[in-house]
Amino acid sequence: MRVAGVMSGTSLDGIDVAIVEIAGRRIETVGFQSTPYSAATRAAILAVSDAATHTSAISRLNFQLGELYARAVLRAVRRFGPVKLIGCHGQTIYHEGAKNTLQIGEAAVIAERTGVPVVSNFRARDIAAGGQGAPLVPYVDYLLFRHPKRTRIALNIGGIANITAIPAGVAANKVVAFDTGPGNMVIDALAPPYDRGGRIAARGRVNTALLDELLADSYYRRKAPKSAGREQYGAAFVARLNKTGLPMEDLVATATVLTAATIALAVRPFGLADLIASGGGVHNPQIMAHLAGFLPDVAISTSTDHGIDADAKEAVAFAVLAYETWRGRPANLPSATGACRAVVLGTLTV
Amino acid sequence: MRVAGVMSGTSLDGIDVAIVEIAGRRIETVGFQSTPYSAATRAAILAVSDAATHTSAISRLNFQLGELYARAVLRAVRRFGPVKLIGCHGQTIYHEGAKNTLQIGEAAVIAERTGVPVVSNFRARDIAAGGQGAPLVPYVDYLLFRHPKRTRIALNIGGIANITAIPAGVAANKVVAFDTGPGNMVIDALAPPYDRGGRIAARGRVNTALLDELLADSYYRRKAPKSAGREQYGAAFVARLNKTGLPMEDLVATATVLTAATIALAVRPFGLADLIASGGGVHNPQIMAHLAGFLPDVAISTSTDHGIDADAKEAVAFAVLAYETWRGRPANLPSATGACRAVVLGTLTV
Repeated sequence: MRVAGVMSGTSLDGIDVAIVEIAGRRIETVGFQSTPYSAATRAAILAVSDAATHTSAISRLNFQLGELYARAVLRAVRRFGPVKLIGCHGQTIYHEGAKNTLQIGEAAVIAERTGVPVVSNFRARDIAAGGQGAPLVPYVDYLLFRHPKRTRIALNIGGIANITAIPAGVAANKVVAFDTGPGNMVIDALAPPYDRGGRIAARGRVNTALLDELLADSYYRRKAPKSAGREQYGAAFVARLNKTGLPMEDLVATATVLTAATIALAVRPFGLADLIASGGGVHNPQIMAHLAGFLPDVAISTSTDHGIDADAKEAVAFAVLAYETWRGRPANLPSATGACRAVVLGTLTV
Repeated sequence: MRVAGVMSGTSLDGIDVAIVEIAGRRIETVGFQSTPYSAATRAAILAVSDAATHTSAISRLNFQLGELYARAVLRAVRRFGPVKLIGCHGQTIYHEGAKNTLQIGEAAVIAERTGVPVVSNFRARDIAAGGQGAPLVPYVDYLLFRHPKRTRIALNIGGIANITAIPAGVAANKVVAFDTGPGNMVIDALAPPYDRGGRIAARGRVNTALLDELLADSYYRRKAPKSAGREQYGAAFVARLNKTGLPMEDLVATATVLTAATIALAVRPFGLADLIASGGGVHNPQIMAHLAGFLPDVAISTSTDHGIDADAKEAVAFAVLAYETWRGRPANLPSATGACRAVVLGTLTV
């Protein structure tokens, strides 16, 4: 079955579409394409994200994003050929782990424009079952990367960074996954749109006092399951950094090490392992170099080395999750989300 | 198949659950039960309805309402036996006809608590197909009441009154449906919570000058499709009535005749017909008596006379609409909503 996975993360870059061929447990990426959000769309999403707003603005944006998702899928389909199913993550505008979550991007609009069934709203059911509604990609990491003899740790460095730890030969219910802390979100906010090639961080000096203060956050020592979001690393966090009065490049350098250090804090307890990185952060050599420095015992590669384009991975994952829902199979990992049971994710709009 | 239909209207009374047995085109109501909203829930819904609010409040309320809907269904199931499917309309917090609509009440929570698949978000697909997303009940009126030799007009007297006109023997695409004008909304506002048994109207005298002035509104002569709402018959309309200085019972008597007269204006062009009434207004003998006076050629009955409890009808309708979606059948009437085509409504959460 050929499935389109549509992902748009908290970084608000835009819409990633992966076209994936799924046959049983074989998963092959046929194509991948990103469509950036316009500045107006990005501003509209920010305006309704965890802020005072109008219900009318949310209702309108829900339909507008549906149109944008449909167009992004149609663009990918023109390039890579037709699909039978779409899995659309939607845009998260609120997430209160284990309590509620709100993704928008009306699936009815996507289904109507494309003529293809859509699975959407993946996170709500896991929360209804007592989970955090996140992370959901670990199920796919387990399908893709598990190894009988080696511990595999899938790392995604998006706005937030997260890992999926798969000890050698374990069953799915032994997989551990959680958000490690900031990914690119803080760096992007300090040096918009992002620190290309890590060049700004390379020019800056890490402020160790500030770094130690940031690392003192109890989140990094809390046990999984746990998840982080724009609430933690959004405008208030960045304002706190700017208030230090340090030069921008020093703040970027410090935030870059914070990302790598908090990932390392999370990865280290698993000992000898293969770390398989994906997400925009793999293109930041500063993050990757610091990671290698912090984790000498860990073999670092990217998901591209394992056949899954590092930029496409999350979109691929939502194609796979949609396929599981289509087949009626549960696809959350209770060990990762904290749910009381495995549930079929999402809702189907034909 | 036994299906629960869950309706909660703009009146914010609470949650109506109808348990319906559907076999092909045979539709039988097994039971009906209303669960009132608490004052706090009513206030929370009003607070996020088309007003300045917080995204967090909407996200939380979405999950809270899911819990309330689940409880209402479970109450009905304990009383009337299990169901195989739930159709949940949800609570509308924004509706901009032909552009966007927003119902909340998380289906994933309902499905998780009840263990029963849920169809929800019925209106979005019709809007995606160019329609107003309303009215949706005419499809069910057509299934329930159409007649090979008689013109059938289904009338629902809720806050707003609306009709579905089904000329004898016509196909679904010839059905006409629209809001006729005020139902109980103005009467309720003049004599809160409502004019029980029409007793206040019975004591008052109709002010014909005021009635003529109200009837001069061009809405009543405009062609369908057309729809009315809280915007037209809300606080401003009632303030205008109160400004006349007439005694309250005279205003109630006049508003009562306005409801009946505007329904009659809408019904009369269809000639000889059976008028099948439902909604709270059927319990107001003053409305019903005036209707009979205005429409001597029309046979007036209630949907209860046709086997569908007049209070349960809207909840029954959403059970039927869910069943159609479950079977993969389109269930909007483009002639009623203005959509470019008939579409499968809603989204399925298993």
